[in-house]
Amino acid sequence: MEIPVWIMIAISACGIGFAYYLVRYVMGCDQGSDVIRNISSAIKEGANAFLKRQYMLLAIFVAVVTLILAFVPGLGWQVAVTFLSGAICSGLAGFIGMSMAVRSNSRTAAAAQKSLNDGLKVSFRGGAIMGICVVSIGLLGVSIFYLIFKDYTSPASILAGFGFGASSVAIFARVGGGIFTKAADTGADLVGKVEQGIPEDDPRNAAVIADLVGDNVGDVAGMGADLFESYVGAIIATMALSAIAVNAGVVDAIGTTAAQTVAWWLPMVIAGGGIIASIIGVFFVKVGEKLEMEALLGALRRGTLVASGLVIGFTAIIVWALGAGWGVLAAVSAGLIAGFLIGESTNYFTSYSFGPTKRVSEASKMGAGTNIISGFANGLMSTVLPIILVVIAILVSHYVADMYGIAIAGVGMLATLGVSLATDAYGPVADNAGGIAEMSELPSEIRDRTDALDSLGNTTAATGKGFAIGAAGITALALMLSYADAVGITAAQFSLLDHRVLSGILLGVMMPAIFCALTMNAVGKTAFTIIGEVRRQFKEIVGIMTGEAKPDYARCVDICTTSALKQMIIPGVMTVIAPILVGFILGPLALGGFLIGAIACGFILAVTMANAGGSWDNAKKYIETGQYGGKGSDAHKAAVVGDTVGDPMKDTSGPSINIMIKLMSVIALVFAPVFVGTTGWIG
Amino acid sequence: MEIPVWIMIAISACGIGFAYYLVRYVMGCDQGSDVIRNISSAIKEGANAFLKRQYMLLAIFVAVVTLILAFVPGLGWQVAVTFLSGAICSGLAGFIGMSMAVRSNSRTAAAAQKSLNDGLKVSFRGGAIMGICVVSIGLLGVSIFYLIFKDYTSPASILAGFGFGASSVAIFARVGGGIFTKAADTGADLVGKVEQGIPEDDPRNAAVIADLVGDNVGDVAGMGADLFESYVGAIIATMALSAIAVNAGVVDAIGTTAAQTVAWWLPMVIAGGGIIASIIGVFFVKVGEKLEMEALLGALRRGTLVASGLVIGFTAIIVWALGAGWGVLAAVSAGLIAGFLIGESTNYFTSYSFGPTKRVSEASKMGAGTNIISGFANGLMSTVLPIILVVIAILVSHYVADMYGIAIAGVGMLATLGVSLATDAYGPVADNAGGIAEMSELPSEIRDRTDALDSLGNTTAATGKGFAIGAAGITALALMLSYADAVGITAAQFSLLDHRVLSGILLGVMMPAIFCALTMNAVGKTAFTIIGEVRRQFKEIVGIMTGEAKPDYARCVDICTTSALKQMIIPGVMTVIAPILVGFILGPLALGGFLIGAIACGFILAVTMANAGGSWDNAKKYIETGQYGGKGSDAHKAAVVGDTVGDPMKDTSGPSINIMIKLMSVIALVFAPVFVGTTGWIG
Repeated sequence: MEIPVWIMIAISACGIGFAYYLVRYVMGCDQGSDVIRNISSAIKEGANAFLKRQYMLLAIFVAVVTLILAFVPGLGWQVAVTFLSGAICSGLAGFIGMSMAVRSNSRTAAAAQKSLNDGLKVSFRGGAIMGICVVSIGLLGVSIFYLIFKDYTSPASILAGFGFGASSVAIFARVGGGIFTKAADTGADLVGKVEQGIPEDDPRNAAVIADLVGDNVGDVAGMGADLFESYVGAIIATMALSAIAVNAGVVDAIGTTAAQTVAWWLPMVIAGGGIIASIIGVFFVKVGEKLEMEALLGALRRGTLVASGLVIGFTAIIVWALGAGWGVLAAVSAGLIAGFLIGESTNYFTSYSFGPTKRVSEASKMGAGTNIISGFANGLMSTVLPIILVVIAILVSHYVADMYGIAIAGVGMLATLGVSLATDAYGPVADNAGGIAEMSELPSEIRDRTDALDSLGNTTAATGKGFAIGAAGITALALMLSYADAVGITAAQFSLLDHRVLSGILLGVMMPAIFCALTMNAVGKTAFTIIGEVRRQFKEIVGIMTGEAKPDYARCVDICTTSALKQMIIPGVMTVIAPILVGFILGPLALGGFLIGAIACGFILAVTMANAGGSWDNAKKYIETGQYGGKGSDAHKAAVVGDTVGDPMKDTSGPSINIMIKLMSVIALVFAPVFVGTTGWIG
Repeated sequence: MEIPVWIMIAISACGIGFAYYLVRYVMGCDQGSDVIRNISSAIKEGANAFLKRQYMLLAIFVAVVTLILAFVPGLGWQVAVTFLSGAICSGLAGFIGMSMAVRSNSRTAAAAQKSLNDGLKVSFRGGAIMGICVVSIGLLGVSIFYLIFKDYTSPASILAGFGFGASSVAIFARVGGGIFTKAADTGADLVGKVEQGIPEDDPRNAAVIADLVGDNVGDVAGMGADLFESYVGAIIATMALSAIAVNAGVVDAIGTTAAQTVAWWLPMVIAGGGIIASIIGVFFVKVGEKLEMEALLGALRRGTLVASGLVIGFTAIIVWALGAGWGVLAAVSAGLIAGFLIGESTNYFTSYSFGPTKRVSEASKMGAGTNIISGFANGLMSTVLPIILVVIAILVSHYVADMYGIAIAGVGMLATLGVSLATDAYGPVADNAGGIAEMSELPSEIRDRTDALDSLGNTTAATGKGFAIGAAGITALALMLSYADAVGITAAQFSLLDHRVLSGILLGVMMPAIFCALTMNAVGKTAFTIIGEVRRQFKEIVGIMTGEAKPDYARCVDICTTSALKQMIIPGVMTVIAPILVGFILGPLALGGFLIGAIACGFILAVTMANAGGSWDNAKKYIETGQYGGKGSDAHKAAVVGDTVGDPMKDTSGPSINIMIKLMSVIALVFAPVFVGTTGWIG
């Protein structure tokens, strides 16, 4: 009697069907003039070339790890199978999202020629394809593997293999894409805007296509992979903690087996309800013709709010139908509300409508140094609300449903991912549409519309980043708890008075720091090569500045691709190897401490980097509205420095930390059977 | 039979006597010309004015806390007495150190006219006065209170009151002094060097005296208070863990009472041996006439290395004489070696003789943005070695002597503090001497000597900062362990699977982040007021630029003082209140997690800020040697931005974190009797 699971498989299939409907909708839209088509196809080619080369590299990595997993004593072929499937699903979700994003950009530019609402609709639906695909593929994979493997002795480890596969692809996608996008952005800005004095998205700039490609491979594919991983991780972690739910009496069903089954089903069923809620939410996103930020933001927010309300309603019905305890509803609501408020807190600290970012703008008056200090301090300060919200969510959900509650709060937070990820993925599409409109010299009223859509995308990107960090934190925590349970660490052993746990924590806090250092330097190195190339083209290709000759866009894309892929290897491989090394050398207790340290410090660093970066960006934009001397003033020059510093922080290092903490936690969970009963070489 | 303790009191008295001998030596040196005297007395006046106003504010704070402590149920008058004494001793150590530093600066400038060795001797001995005073006063206080209170039921809490008092003064001294020094520095540089194009330490700059005052109130008094607290904290924490030492069989003495007594004595006696070793070490610091960095650095390092060797020898004798286990010797050595290597790691990451800082210089070629990214990444990367060294020290010392071993490793690390603090305090004296030589227009060969001494001071400052962070981390950890013991948390309760512990950790990691944000902004605000004032004076006082009129130095000092003292209140008070709030609201388990979170994240942030700041500073200096276009080039301008950003990080926020993590831990230890058996309002 697996009826609920079969229903979930059906819902996932419906989701994929709905995504296909959206694809048909977007593909049916007008592609615009030949100029627009040409630019768009250049972006498409570049993005595809990057993804192809990235996936080829990843295929080698995935093949090697699959083989290793199959032969590790204590794991076996089942884990290898789920790992491989997770990797393929994650890669697929990224590929679909990106493919549609690069097809939606030109259509958005063309639709904006009709009306603002048409432009919003195409770009949002282009983004929604990825949102709905991510959740549908995620739930489908988990449900199928649940049906296949639920009778095995260590389902946590086997299902976790699916998360491990997804995460492995995600970290390379996020890091590689993040390096690409920011290096291209920095390179294009530095040579184009600063040295040659030509505007952003100017076709004379050789790196301009690379910059637009970067939005797709970094912000679309990378973000999709990140949240796919959170989504799957939260569901798996909750299932892994089902025994705790039964012991704590969270589930009211009669008999232990029945109770455990219900505890297993709950996260899947809530996720299924979330998919339906998200699909409904997508239809609530529409707007009039007013170019007002408030109205546009309200339109997008409406989709998420409707979906959130529906999820709470669905959960109530599910709890009642499955006979689970009402504590589950409270935990899910706590997660959902915390996720929403973390997003709002991010908005407060990064939007120039509020004090914090205004103060960063003001500090630019005194120079780049004070701008940097003020923005960095703002980023550090912005950790307060997210931390307090996560702590409240933990305390509430633990009070109502023990450890299981913490994990299912994560499921609640991610239940509306279908629509909230649509909102995130919308941003790069609108950004690309703006770039295309600029490059193809559309009339200024159309530019005003695409600009409005673009600047809305910047706001939702900040909110989305905050949400992604919150989701990653709670998912990683839930995975860590599952690891402790799976490896058989008792509460008494997992003590802060144990020297191995203490050592693990200290080593753990170090990981996000090194990871940030590596990724920030990677952006610097890649940007360096791009800058050299753009300078060379300006010098060597005669007639670029007069528009008589076209720069070699493809070469810049190629250089970015090669360098980004090379630079992603060390941070990615380090993340995979570190938890295994700690487990073998210092033992499973130290590994548990290591995870906690990495999660706690990673959370702080990720929020700081995302919000410092966001506020530097918007502080610059605020000055560009005419404040403190406006564009070209000394304050503006100072703010540009801040923006350059913030770029790799907010779009490469910060978001990659999300994946890093989840990946290390899920690896620990997968390897738990190997570490059971060991004490490490020197532990 | 308290013979060892009486011997320690005698050694402390000898230490104070030796400090008096050094005072006589320094005071007997030539004060130089009238010009030198005038400048020096302006610095002295400013520093005294700051300290007087700061101590008056602190007196109110200390009085209030003393009264509160006396009436808190479960603590009582004993804690109030030790708290008050700790506060007075810490204030005294800071006062003596600073008074002698402001008297040594002019004498160093004068002595440099004779020879390099004379200059080094005066400045080093000026710094050594504080070094020896800090350790002697610290050991004296602990020994006396041991004799008075050792029979009370909760000596941990009572002795910890002494540490609490010391820490409370230290945090305000460090934060207030840190804000003062960096605001004055930034203000002087921005208006003087950048806007008016006059050199550093130019007498026409109204903020130049404030800048020199800052070196004394921030780097001397602040650093002294920081390490006084580490020193006392490490000894107290070790004594508090003596019961653990007995249970673990660390001490071989016959009978439990005798064993516990030996475990109590050990940290005091090792510290006493350290004082003698430090005094001997001071005499080993001398140099020839070659202006070579290597030779100068070797001279200073010789003092610390000799003292370290002696401490290991002393400890061996003490272990044998008191009949303790040889594990103690291993733990002390582990701490000592880790402390030394952390200093060396700092040197590697911040000196421009090595790759990391050279790369920051190179990144400056591409602008301020890349300089900032590169330096920040370098700071993050530099956390690796300190963390690994601390972890190794923990594992080794725990292996040989359980939790007690971790604490006594901290005592070992700090045993040579007398001479290593002398090396730190030497820096600001040499810096001041350089400024005085510049302002009084001494001949260039004398300037070369004071410059060499100054640049040596910059190197030792970086090493000293690394050491201070390492010492703070291990001391805070030991205090946290003592807290857990004192509040009666069993290993089994203190579990990472407890939701309160988890919540505590998350709240804890947030604290250093907020603290940094507050202190960085405080420097910004204060610098802002100073910049306004210096600009005003240049505009309104006719004849400043031609040297016909003198700027109003005192007004700048006064503005810095007022603003710094105002800005230090919130971060300081927050640090005192936060652990008490967490303890009352979430209970003692959450408070334990809170401490671990704050220590781990604080350690990472402190190392990152100190080393990023150090490498920005030296990257700028490297360019000034003629690299990448040298002074005035675009690369240099970019590097100046990095230096401005690094200043508050490395001299205000970073070092203050050291005190913050120890202060919160010692407060938890003091309030342990209040929290015993409670669970918090919502825990």
